[in-house]
Amino acid sequence: MAAKRGRRPGEFELIERYFRPLAGERGAFGLTDDAALYRQRPHEDLVFTSDMVAEGVHFFPDDPPDTVARKALRVNLSDLAAKGAVPFGYLLSLGLPGEWTEAWMRKFAVGLKTDQARYDVTLLGGDTIRAPDAVIISVTAIGRVPKGRMIMRSGARPGDAIFVSGTIGDAALGLRLRQGRLAVAKGAKYLLDRYLHPEPRLPLVPVLRRHATSAIDVSDGLVGDLAHICEVSGVGAEIESLRVPLSTAARRALVDDYSLLSIVLNGGDDYEVLATVAASAAGGFARQARAAGVPVTRIGRIVSGEGPPLVKDATGQPIRIGATSHTHF
Amino acid sequence: MAAKRGRRPGEFELIERYFRPLAGERGAFGLTDDAALYRQRPHEDLVFTSDMVAEGVHFFPDDPPDTVARKALRVNLSDLAAKGAVPFGYLLSLGLPGEWTEAWMRKFAVGLKTDQARYDVTLLGGDTIRAPDAVIISVTAIGRVPKGRMIMRSGARPGDAIFVSGTIGDAALGLRLRQGRLAVAKGAKYLLDRYLHPEPRLPLVPVLRRHATSAIDVSDGLVGDLAHICEVSGVGAEIESLRVPLSTAARRALVDDYSLLSIVLNGGDDYEVLATVAASAAGGFARQARAAGVPVTRIGRIVSGEGPPLVKDATGQPIRIGATSHTHF
Repeated sequence: MAAKRGRRPGEFELIERYFRPLAGERGAFGLTDDAALYRQRPHEDLVFTSDMVAEGVHFFPDDPPDTVARKALRVNLSDLAAKGAVPFGYLLSLGLPGEWTEAWMRKFAVGLKTDQARYDVTLLGGDTIRAPDAVIISVTAIGRVPKGRMIMRSGARPGDAIFVSGTIGDAALGLRLRQGRLAVAKGAKYLLDRYLHPEPRLPLVPVLRRHATSAIDVSDGLVGDLAHICEVSGVGAEIESLRVPLSTAARRALVDDYSLLSIVLNGGDDYEVLATVAASAAGGFARQARAAGVPVTRIGRIVSGEGPPLVKDATGQPIRIGATSHTHF
Repeated sequence: MAAKRGRRPGEFELIERYFRPLAGERGAFGLTDDAALYRQRPHEDLVFTSDMVAEGVHFFPDDPPDTVARKALRVNLSDLAAKGAVPFGYLLSLGLPGEWTEAWMRKFAVGLKTDQARYDVTLLGGDTIRAPDAVIISVTAIGRVPKGRMIMRSGARPGDAIFVSGTIGDAALGLRLRQGRLAVAKGAKYLLDRYLHPEPRLPLVPVLRRHATSAIDVSDGLVGDLAHICEVSGVGAEIESLRVPLSTAARRALVDDYSLLSIVLNGGDDYEVLATVAASAAGGFARQARAAGVPVTRIGRIVSGEGPPLVKDATGQPIRIGATSHTHF
């Protein structure tokens, strides 16, 4: 967050100026009340998810404020997408240190506004507080799913095909670039953008609802998140490293330094959807996903047994890839 | 938060050890999934509210962790109570700096467990992150209200009686004590406890639903929160300072130093309910509230016109009480 100090409004003015325009009348009452209202619909379930991000931990002090806002919202929408839920609103709690500026705040609100329109969600409420030293953002997003149709981590069955959307590892490489720990000849801008602007896979929701036996969004890393599914489903998994979909930029980076493979497989922040699908439905799932505008790739299969996912190389030999999960903690 | 460093678990162990035991199977799946599920009920609306608190701003580094946890939860339940909603669950996002200890965490979880039992709520989900310098806690609480019956800030009408539950100003005086800015001969323990352990007025919910035309919880200060009702309802208000209910401890403090009156009227953190009731229903409201175990006091009336609430002294003259609202910001 920019350190320049200026005249700053108090909490009420802040809400009035920046947040009220983001809140619909419907349910949020233009943020004039203490709480938001949701009129229940008998044929739907609601899905709730919360994610918190902190300056200096999840984003850099000089990241563009609109980008920070959008990513804080998107990581939550990504969770909903993986559960087969369509988001409709969110609550935002924002901790701001003493040095925040109106310029920062204005851009932050623009970021939210942009993504509210993009994903058809509305601000339902929240809180603004003074935080001691760094910007902290907590978002709780709420989505709808037809009754009994939330996709769980627990439904994977031996024999299921494992799919992942988009490409994997770009964001982890983008973060390395952002940290100055990686240099690439080409594709830096693309990788950085993938790190800064994850794309919640909401168009995949109807296809997931139709076919997925389990799903999770890849936030902690491909192997680590697959391990979560295995653990809760009581199954094992095998993936073929050569099948893991890579962007051209990531592929180039790996050609230069193959040791980056573990970053790709374990790095976080992809926000792609990892889903399991009955083998008999695999073809239909892939076709319908493509038709929905989200390419998916079959990377392996669920097996019986327990333990961490097995990652195999081109010859079918298991690869040791170090720690199985990236956490922001 | 205690500064002693020890061996500390990672995010997954932390969730496993401290948060999973707080989450019911119903809806939260023992926190084994990315999101919580809520099965909608056709005859109810849902009410959402979020509050964030930060170490060094809303609580002291050496406040007992169980107290910190309970207050973070209770301020949200208080919002729901004032809206006529009965809480059923909450999401918790917790930012922990590097120096957190298991001892702190264990007590924090005990605080949550105690209040979950006390208020019949369950942990639905959330997030744990590393925060740069101070503990940050964000809670989103969710409650139920019969369809169309959420109590708004906007329903106050000229002629309505203004009621407040419990006693006012104790928490603001307790905070002053905690800060070493006030000394009292007697009642210090009581005032401090009122600051640390606000009591959400949930037993008042059925009575509020029956009678209240508007309501708000007193978090920013009596006069400031009444001003919020006036603003949104498009009305004015008059309160008689002598009728504002005071505890014995607060009364004693005021006898010693009458200038504390503005602290009492403007100080935050009471978490009592301020409600307006049609004059014809005032008697029934007070009786039923008492029967529900929550004393309420009639302190004034809603008038036509606009502008901040008028506070009158014993002779009916307006009192100037300085700033109209306390904010934590």
